[in-house]
Amino acid sequence: MNEITIFAPATIANISCGFDVLGCCLDTVGDEMVVRKVPEKGVKISKIEGVDLPFESDKNVAGVAALALLNEFKKKLDFGFEIDIYKNIKPGSGIGSSAASAAGAVFAINELLNKPFSKLQLVEFARKGEELACGSPIADNVAPAIFGGFTLVKSTNPLNIIELPSLEGLYTTILHPQIEIKTEDSRTILPKKVALTDAVKQWANVGALVHALHTNDYNLFSESLTDFIVEPHRSKLIYGFDKVKESALKAGALGCGISGSGPSIFTFSKNHQIAENVANSLNSIYLKNNIPFKIYISKISTQGIKIINTK
Amino acid sequence: MNEITIFAPATIANISCGFDVLGCCLDTVGDEMVVRKVPEKGVKISKIEGVDLPFESDKNVAGVAALALLNEFKKKLDFGFEIDIYKNIKPGSGIGSSAASAAGAVFAINELLNKPFSKLQLVEFARKGEELACGSPIADNVAPAIFGGFTLVKSTNPLNIIELPSLEGLYTTILHPQIEIKTEDSRTILPKKVALTDAVKQWANVGALVHALHTNDYNLFSESLTDFIVEPHRSKLIYGFDKVKESALKAGALGCGISGSGPSIFTFSKNHQIAENVANSLNSIYLKNNIPFKIYISKISTQGIKIINTK
Repeated sequence: MNEITIFAPATIANISCGFDVLGCCLDTVGDEMVVRKVPEKGVKISKIEGVDLPFESDKNVAGVAALALLNEFKKKLDFGFEIDIYKNIKPGSGIGSSAASAAGAVFAINELLNKPFSKLQLVEFARKGEELACGSPIADNVAPAIFGGFTLVKSTNPLNIIELPSLEGLYTTILHPQIEIKTEDSRTILPKKVALTDAVKQWANVGALVHALHTNDYNLFSESLTDFIVEPHRSKLIYGFDKVKESALKAGALGCGISGSGPSIFTFSKNHQIAENVANSLNSIYLKNNIPFKIYISKISTQGIKIINTK
Repeated sequence: MNEITIFAPATIANISCGFDVLGCCLDTVGDEMVVRKVPEKGVKISKIEGVDLPFESDKNVAGVAALALLNEFKKKLDFGFEIDIYKNIKPGSGIGSSAASAAGAVFAINELLNKPFSKLQLVEFARKGEELACGSPIADNVAPAIFGGFTLVKSTNPLNIIELPSLEGLYTTILHPQIEIKTEDSRTILPKKVALTDAVKQWANVGALVHALHTNDYNLFSESLTDFIVEPHRSKLIYGFDKVKESALKAGALGCGISGSGPSIFTFSKNHQIAENVANSLNSIYLKNNIPFKIYISKISTQGIKIINTK
């Protein structure tokens, strides 16, 4: 295999109660990437379409993640890799744009090298890309991008990722208001300390959510999608959040929260029809504002990154 | 049925990462209770053996819980109930002494009335007993006593109890140092606020623990039994805690923590042999102190309260 074309999915992180640990993978929203072997050694970003991002390998998240992988590959290579990136996920959207690029690059190169690395190792490499993009090697977007479905980052040092079951037929509707939230703002707005009573309610919900996924219990899943800690603060940065949430739940969504550190707002629905109803309701709510926005509907993927083509 | 004899089990609450929400039920450590119909209406505590506790129904946890049940029973009764309590679990031990009495009373009366109430309702009634004993209607001991196995208190208002699967063949070894910890001390030593970074690690562990129970994964169960929030404070109140923990883990325990608010220290083991090895190691450690102590070994029960005899 000399060339591989992949679909690198968008992901939802910070799923309500699971701040910093729970994420899941989208099925039909994401980027395309083509990675091919080339005579020149190392990693070259040869094409970026859709958004304006740096081409230098050590300044591009896909490049940094790819270099982290090659650094751990012990055999000597007499070739290098060229990466074409077709971005659909806008950076700063909150649905794992940098994670898709980082995860996609290491997944593709691993395939071209005949899979010397495990999925867990790929997450480790992809985290280096996240470190470049976010300032810290977060794993809660790259983990669901690589493993698919729902993932729990049990610990980051050592890295321990748990693959959780998904609910049958689960859909997400995502509203992406085209506003910029500065990473610094979304961080500094969070309290360093939280009430123990709130923390207890939060971890009860995390336990309940994991149980709901194992038992395919939509009601419990829905009841567990509450965030006592982060959402009350970060939602202030997203215009109209409370109205959007109210409207989504009224339209039948199982839950609604801030994806990543925003501004995207995710919702979950039991099936495609409800996901469309939710989309319609969010559309009519957000049309009233003077803020451009996008709405995505996708199944939750249990697969993660998908191979589109190989040569 | 006019009389029922039951085994009311001891329970472990505050299981490491699951402070205030995760509990489990012992199989062979607990009290016996006999409850019988008598012509005199209401609830009478007719016998208490083993410890010194009040006989007045409204000052005894079993009485208060029983009265809460009868208060909700809509049909008119032309008889009452008499309760004999044979306590083996010492109050203030941290392994659910008051919960056993409260849960046992309502379970037994429910049987004598042909089970008009659900297990969840029984937990509600038993909580009234806990309120008398601890000052607040905690549910994390009465829930495993009534449901058996591992339980998660998802929320207390409304009460939502989740029955979790247990690990096959799981044993506990419990060290009960015969010291008194004042409830007030065990409460005031806890911080009202906790670091968000610690809370995140804690809820990652709760999620992982629930996953481990669903997948019968002993390693993950063991790795999840870490408490970043409560144990560092409360362990200071229990003489020799750190040495006990170190010794238990060295002897093969999967985890070790403070049961309830102490002073009992629980450990989990994969089988009976390891549980005995742990008991031996705790015994030799604690013999060096001048503090009397007891050690219990028990399987984790999936059954909860057991019926011994009916007439």
